[in-house]
Amino acid sequence: MIANTPQPPYYAVIFSNIRTEIEDGYAETADEMVRLAELQEGYLGHESVREGLGITVSYWSNQEAILKWKQQTDHLLAQRMGREKWYAAYKTRICKVERDYGFSV
Amino acid sequence: MIANTPQPPYYAVIFSNIRTEIEDGYAETADEMVRLAELQEGYLGHESVREGLGITVSYWSNQEAILKWKQQTDHLLAQRMGREKWYAAYKTRICKVERDYGFSV
Repeated sequence: MIANTPQPPYYAVIFSNIRTEIEDGYAETADEMVRLAELQEGYLGHESVREGLGITVSYWSNQEAILKWKQQTDHLLAQRMGREKWYAAYKTRICKVERDYGFSV
Repeated sequence: MIANTPQPPYYAVIFSNIRTEIEDGYAETADEMVRLAELQEGYLGHESVREGLGITVSYWSNQEAILKWKQQTDHLLAQRMGREKWYAAYKTRICKVERDYGFSV
């Protein structure tokens, strides 16, 4: 469940969000966006958690891959639906991962 | 609940983690670490969610602030307890936030 990312540098997109109470295709679209992201060149993995606040972090090999993903047609439609229906608030942060470390037992 | 961060550039520390079943002071220490982080120079805010996987993102004005926080004595102790007891796995990623955007209704 923790994304298996390569040695830095690589990129992370932190998407912090608060949902409205409107369902209307949200779950299906979220699943489809994950499926499409996984097909994009430069996609490295993602981690997603919701507990009131939702945080989804996707990892990418470079900035160009992130821009292409942002401009992907179906994703543009999902972004518009997101602003109009599904989210009460969100913040997207595009980051360069400079160092990382960790452990697992 | 979404951290109110300034204009980029600033820094983000993404801490992705999976807990063990051991409680043993975890909640108290987590609360205390938030309290101590908020006192650190350069701390900008944080977002924290758990749903099986836990993701905590803390935001900082610069890398020096992150290093000082990493080396803070009580935090070092919590890191050791984390590795020895509370976490089955974690990954910490230190990132430079280059761009951000968002909305709220």
